Amino acid sequence: MARPLDLHPDRLFPADPAVRQLTRELYGAVKDLPIVSPHGHTDPAWFAGNAPFGDAAELLLRPDHYVFRMLYSQGVSLETLGIGPAKASYDPRAAWRVFADHWHLFRGTPSRMWLDWVFAEAFGFTEMLGPDTADHYFDTITAALASDAFRPRALFDRYNIEVIATTESPLDTLEHHAAVMAENARPGGWQGRVVTAYRPDPVIDPEFEGFQANLDRFSELTGEDCRTWSGYLAAHRQRRAFFARHGATSTDHGHPTALTADLPPAEAEALFARVVSGTFTPDEAELFRAQMLTEMAGMSLDDGLVMQLHPGSFRNHNAAVFARYGRDKGADIPTRTDYVRALKPLLDRYGNEAGLTLILFTLDESVYARELAPLAGHYPCLRLGPAWWFHDSPEGMRRFRLATTETAGFYNTVGFNDDTRAFLSIPARHDLARRIDCGFLAGLVAEHRLADWEAAELAQDLTYNLVKQAYKL
Amino acid sequence: MARPLDLHPDRLFPADPAVRQLTRELYGAVKDLPIVSPHGHTDPAWFAGNAPFGDAAELLLRPDHYVFRMLYSQGVSLETLGIGPAKASYDPRAAWRVFADHWHLFRGTPSRMWLDWVFAEAFGFTEMLGPDTADHYFDTITAALASDAFRPRALFDRYNIEVIATTESPLDTLEHHAAVMAENARPGGWQGRVVTAYRPDPVIDPEFEGFQANLDRFSELTGEDCRTWSGYLAAHRQRRAFFARHGATSTDHGHPTALTADLPPAEAEALFARVVSGTFTPDEAELFRAQMLTEMAGMSLDDGLVMQLHPGSFRNHNAAVFARYGRDKGADIPTRTDYVRALKPLLDRYGNEAGLTLILFTLDESVYARELAPLAGHYPCLRLGPAWWFHDSPEGMRRFRLATTETAGFYNTVGFNDDTRAFLSIPARHDLARRIDCGFLAGLVAEHRLADWEAAELAQDLTYNLVKQAYKL
Amino acid sequence: MARPLDLHPDRLFPADPAVRQLTRELYGAVKDLPIVSPHGHTDPAWFAGNAPFGDAAELLLRPDHYVFRMLYSQGVSLETLGIGPAKASYDPRAAWRVFADHWHLFRGTPSRMWLDWVFAEAFGFTEMLGPDTADHYFDTITAALASDAFRPRALFDRYNIEVIATTESPLDTLEHHAAVMAENARPGGWQGRVVTAYRPDPVIDPEFEGFQANLDRFSELTGEDCRTWSGYLAAHRQRRAFFARHGATSTDHGHPTALTADLPPAEAEALFARVVSGTFTPDEAELFRAQMLTEMAGMSLDDGLVMQLHPGSFRNHNAAVFARYGRDKGADIPTRTDYVRALKPLLDRYGNEAGLTLILFTLDESVYARELAPLAGHYPCLRLGPAWWFHDSPEGMRRFRLATTETAGFYNTVGFNDDTRAFLSIPARHDLARRIDCGFLAGLVAEHRLADWEAAELAQDLTYNLVKQAYKL
Repeated sequence: MARPLDLHPDRLFPADPAVRQLTRELYGAVKDLPIVSPHGHTDPAWFAGNAPFGDAAELLLRPDHYVFRMLYSQGVSLETLGIGPAKASYDPRAAWRVFADHWHLFRGTPSRMWLDWVFAEAFGFTEMLGPDTADHYFDTITAALASDAFRPRALFDRYNIEVIATTESPLDTLEHHAAVMAENARPGGWQGRVVTAYRPDPVIDPEFEGFQANLDRFSELTGEDCRTWSGYLAAHRQRRAFFARHGATSTDHGHPTALTADLPPAEAEALFARVVSGTFTPDEAELFRAQMLTEMAGMSLDDGLVMQLHPGSFRNHNAAVFARYGRDKGADIPTRTDYVRALKPLLDRYGNEAGLTLILFTLDESVYARELAPLAGHYPCLRLGPAWWFHDSPEGMRRFRLATTETAGFYNTVGFNDDTRAFLSIPARHDLARRIDCGFLAGLVAEHRLADWEAAELAQDLTYNLVKQAYKL
Repeated sequence: MARPLDLHPDRLFPADPAVRQLTRELYGAVKDLPIVSPHGHTDPAWFAGNAPFGDAAELLLRPDHYVFRMLYSQGVSLETLGIGPAKASYDPRAAWRVFADHWHLFRGTPSRMWLDWVFAEAFGFTEMLGPDTADHYFDTITAALASDAFRPRALFDRYNIEVIATTESPLDTLEHHAAVMAENARPGGWQGRVVTAYRPDPVIDPEFEGFQANLDRFSELTGEDCRTWSGYLAAHRQRRAFFARHGATSTDHGHPTALTADLPPAEAEALFARVVSGTFTPDEAELFRAQMLTEMAGMSLDDGLVMQLHPGSFRNHNAAVFARYGRDKGADIPTRTDYVRALKPLLDRYGNEAGLTLILFTLDESVYARELAPLAGHYPCLRLGPAWWFHDSPEGMRRFRLATTETAGFYNTVGFNDDTRAFLSIPARHDLARRIDCGFLAGLVAEHRLADWEAAELAQDLTYNLVKQAYKL
Repeated sequence: MARPLDLHPDRLFPADPAVRQLTRELYGAVKDLPIVSPHGHTDPAWFAGNAPFGDAAELLLRPDHYVFRMLYSQGVSLETLGIGPAKASYDPRAAWRVFADHWHLFRGTPSRMWLDWVFAEAFGFTEMLGPDTADHYFDTITAALASDAFRPRALFDRYNIEVIATTESPLDTLEHHAAVMAENARPGGWQGRVVTAYRPDPVIDPEFEGFQANLDRFSELTGEDCRTWSGYLAAHRQRRAFFARHGATSTDHGHPTALTADLPPAEAEALFARVVSGTFTPDEAELFRAQMLTEMAGMSLDDGLVMQLHPGSFRNHNAAVFARYGRDKGADIPTRTDYVRALKPLLDRYGNEAGLTLILFTLDESVYARELAPLAGHYPCLRLGPAWWFHDSPEGMRRFRLATTETAGFYNTVGFNDDTRAFLSIPARHDLARRIDCGFLAGLVAEHRLADWEAAELAQDLTYNLVKQAYKL
């Protein structure tokens, strides 16, 4: 059976013909704007070294936890996909065939939309992935990846990326960012802008794997005694400045909850002493993370780095998978998250500072209208990050706009984040967001809630201006 | 650039042409029905004294916390808007210009819809508010407000208001209501009906500012000893009767949670003694509020006043704003609210009384389908209030109907509340609700889930009949 | 006034003409597929005895808690409807008239859609129910029910039911299922397939009415000593096998929460001893239910029965109604339900077993996108049951698909459950689900998110294939 791969120009546009026509016009004016990617997980080594990517499975399958979590949920073993200790015996082509056999599982998911874009636009396929096209896909993609046109810098340029942020630990030496900056400065050098972001979880979360060793490394890197409270804080300040010199304009915090605290200095110091001792309770670990969010906010007021808070994921929920395969294996599950009480200590301290920007994300959509929009619609320091992770999808984005706009407006939001390590799909993700936002705006115009020229302005703002302003890019 | 202010006749109607046509027909039959406003916060002194309103900023800007919260969230100081201790140095025209400069912030919000109606319908503007029209707006509005046509009674009549309820503390003397009633009774006098509602939070909530002094005043007003349990209850009964004589058909309760209690009398009395002593815990304060809801329900069974419960707002969340500017400065944030366990004590006592009406509101939309609709679809005493506060908006109202109708039906709901002090926008708010309800009904007709004549009946019921029945107006 | 009863062929299809046309095509191909009903509450005695049903009120009104809860909420007494101790004095025709007088209450509810189908399709009415047609309805329905065409087996065949599952306690002797199986095996005998399901709540929930006596009966039936832990577990194994011999392919668990536990055997045994002693705390009862879910999962791995978990209903919320009328009187209210932490003990033990199927249901829609879809999109053993109970409705089903598909996909769902004792409406319920699913798929096609042939495949899968696979029917 012929199964054409069809990237319809109207995809993701509302079905009503009049709204669709309005959407086309709005989208037409923003679809070619440069990509500003303020938060993500691409590897800076790609852009520093510009080595070719590997084969189809290595690039598109093994690192994509959206993909392998779905396959695993339907009984495909992670080993088959080259994940885990048995990687030696794994066959990329066989893995790809398994993926192709199960392609129907992704119907209705954003992965399907992203990957179809990669298949059609990046690699030129005209037939849908499936058992009969699996080898053709594998061979074509693998061959393309060996070509110069598919090297990281070439893709970066072809994708019209104005700037991309990666995310690094304070323990990272940022040598790849330094290399890119050197290349940028070289006459005739590549001009791609690749900046870092300060993600201090490994030295802030006492329950992070290797936390104690991380503190030691933190001391080494900074020359501070990171087992004293003052040394530890000084080390953060130093590394934040180091990150800023490597382009960082933001920090990022991935905490189990949104809890913040604002302890008197002596209590904070005493808490840190317990954390450093290695004998602390889960409540003390939580309180320390909470305190550190407020400390980070204070440092942001000084150095201008924008804060991002990504709370609410129960990491590594599947004990057996974690034991065998490690972190980030598709077993992170969102939990109910409170913001109103959790953020109050930080907001009581810094909430009215217009010089602070704290961008809030959530995996708990029930807070969009109830908590986040009212908070962001009042506190000068708060902004709402876009629909995140499981909600970075057509319906997820629509729910975000529907639930937040009436209370927070558009101008307390910050455009789109792709938040991905799947480099090839970055344009697909931004394109999806542009399509959904334009469709949402078109709906407001069709209901005479906005003038057409206002929607056109907003389309530019949501696509390009707000993200640059919010992230100071 | 010309930016016409366009109040399109089809605004807020669904985009699909067939559904839109059905909506037009339903709306056409209800758009001119009188306004019944059973719950709100207009000032009865306006109708008693009929003095002109002040300038544009004084009427439309300073009192509207939807407006100034948004401006504040984007860095505008409250002082600029004439809020707070520095009011002396505030310039209304300058405040209005700041507002006009930031008008784009309200795109997609209900404030935009309400105010555009006020600008276009009440004042006749044909160009949109903006920096270039700010002075023209300010001068035109301020001049109009000085004219007789914009005095409170003239607007009341022009707006086709059949009855409006205000909300007063038990400590209020209701002299303005008495004055309006005297005017009503005067031959040839103004016939506008302005009733009060009994909002006893200041003498029920032990954590209310001035609670102890309020108790003393409560004693003075009633001649009861309000520091004894029996005297306190008798005082409530007396003031409820006094309020009923001033037109009240309802009470209203704004509690942090929906908790109710039904203590044995001796325990209730002992709890009251602790509350009166001024040395009580937060849990005791909460338990007392809970107990009083059940006491109020019992009194409602006796005197027929309809109860309204508005729970779930974390008041004055911003400590610095509260300290400097006081209550109601846009810093009230909704919280997750339980109804199922919270209401059980009251419902165990009075839930099966068809003679009681308890109207439930929420700021936590996750309870619409899960808790409120199932409760209201069973208990004879319960009804669902309309989408409230942050949810009094096009999408908020749609979510309310979508989430409650299938389980509670339409007839366990009570029509619309404007819940506002923004008198000029009252018709805009009722009109918005009528448009959204008619669009919702039209969608059901288009999907052949209702006959057209049923939708027409429902449009009348949702606009006019249900509110009069539920509130006994 | 003429009020035709109109079952429009396009009912419940999206209003947009293009999407509607796509829906018609998808629906046309699945509307006549056989009904597979894997979970419900019909009475097996109907199919064993094939006796005629009673009168209109007896069949359609008295047993339908969706109907009488709504009437009760609007002040109709349960006695009027023949419910409760005063049944002797109840008049079915009078009850039916009351129902007809209140038919408008059901506008916008699924009961209206289901019953209109029964009225129009099963009984041939062409005018809507109402006060003027009440007697005509009552007489026509009652007369029809006395005819052979309306006996249970005739309806089963006419309704094209391929298989129906009932739900029984472990204490049930399954004599009616045995009788049906004997009839099936009789040459020329009726071929309807009626299977049971194992619902062990009466012997697992220590707070179930009559639990201690149930344990005694459990011992009698099995010959095991069900007051010892090993005997109790053996009795379960024995009855599960007995149920499987009577067609059961599944178990079902209706717990207040989704809590699971995985205690060391000695602790489980000690907990059981406390439960059996009759002196246990509510926490111990909860922990025992939690432990038993994990025990049942272990047995399912051995015997292949599919597990269903239906948590989150606060049963018999109305104390007075429960005291007077007993269980299941429309006073069960959903509560907020956690799955992420609650299921972890069971999932840590068995979550990676592809040989186990655990189908999760919820009454708390806020978990669809946040918890259930991410869990089902990862764990091999998990599947998502369809929108349940209050959410078994057009909008409820739409919210289910919108919130779960993007993360869990379609293939971690299991088709439709009617979950009903209202036998006459079973085709209406399946038809409603098919219409909504086809409309949802058509929307994806219209937005170019699926190819038309994929949507056609999915329509078959959602209607027929997934339920048969998931339930092993």
